[in-house]
Amino acid sequence: MYEGAVQDLIDELGRLPGVGPKSAQRIAFHLLAADPTDVRRLVDALTEVKARVRFCEVCGNVSQEPQCRVCRDPRRSDEVICVVEEPKDVVAIERTREFRGKYHVLGGAINPIAGVGPDDLRIKDLLSRLASGVVTEVILATDPNVEGEATATYLARMLVPMGLTVSRLASGLPVGGDLEYADEITLGRAFEGRRRINA
Amino acid sequence: MYEGAVQDLIDELGRLPGVGPKSAQRIAFHLLAADPTDVRRLVDALTEVKARVRFCEVCGNVSQEPQCRVCRDPRRSDEVICVVEEPKDVVAIERTREFRGKYHVLGGAINPIAGVGPDDLRIKDLLSRLASGVVTEVILATDPNVEGEATATYLARMLVPMGLTVSRLASGLPVGGDLEYADEITLGRAFEGRRRINA
Repeated sequence: MYEGAVQDLIDELGRLPGVGPKSAQRIAFHLLAADPTDVRRLVDALTEVKARVRFCEVCGNVSQEPQCRVCRDPRRSDEVICVVEEPKDVVAIERTREFRGKYHVLGGAINPIAGVGPDDLRIKDLLSRLASGVVTEVILATDPNVEGEATATYLARMLVPMGLTVSRLASGLPVGGDLEYADEITLGRAFEGRRRINA
Repeated sequence: MYEGAVQDLIDELGRLPGVGPKSAQRIAFHLLAADPTDVRRLVDALTEVKARVRFCEVCGNVSQEPQCRVCRDPRRSDEVICVVEEPKDVVAIERTREFRGKYHVLGGAINPIAGVGPDDLRIKDLLSRLASGVVTEVILATDPNVEGEATATYLARMLVPMGLTVSRLASGLPVGGDLEYADEITLGRAFEGRRRINA
């Protein structure tokens, strides 16, 4: 519908996740009218990310150094590893300030429909990290959905016989939520995981 | 939360219209994992748009030539001008295939709260185009909201005394919509603009 360059930009933006044709058009016109230095900054940020960001050689998190910030931090315990699917899960957990160990990013979850098996995830690297014997506990923090649960089960079956303490993040009602709006699976999990109050 | 380049990209993406912090993060990680040639294509599209796209010297639409595709088209009538707020409105009207005249893009609408007055819009350019005497009809196709209506009223007061046929796009019920879900203003407009059926 648009002339060459404008349509090319709309097409490229439309390929981004969560950006539909209408948003792509809106963003393209915003950029057309924007100050050239603003567009320059976006272009630089894109170029920089591809040029400089790599994955941590230890845990698989995003990093600008061979090792990521968490793996480099000497104040963090090497005895506990929290296993997550994606680098953004690391950020979500870091935000809670609850965890002072290290991470291991799998790069996804087992998903037979999408053709993702255990060999496509960074599970071998996890086993190498455990081989040193420093790690005593593994927290499985994969997503609380079918693929995440399958991945956690697969890992637990492998890790428990190795004598490690293996745990899974609790499922239950979201804090600040309404009981009546909880779906039955979440509510069922909340019952299952109920905690005794010692008053 | 992220290291340098990743956070920079998330920040830049978050400045785009309709992209919140979560979407910005999602897009950034998509681009991190994407093929470098895909990112290259996006970067090129951004650079090209800023380098090559300008605004049509006649109507203000986006264009890669001094004049846009519509203004260059000799098969289109010079007697009717359709006035719109933005280039994307041109595309929306072109999609209907109902209009065979030329356009005039104002670059916005009168909005006192945002500090946009008639002098900030391409109204002087419109008057120069009308001065030649070729144009006989002006269709005011600004948005059917407060700012668009104010702009249409302002232009109508100026153009009607010049002896031009001035019209405004019809307001009414959206085709395929449900009467009971129409807001009262739209329903009121639909009553006002009712058409007699001669069976």
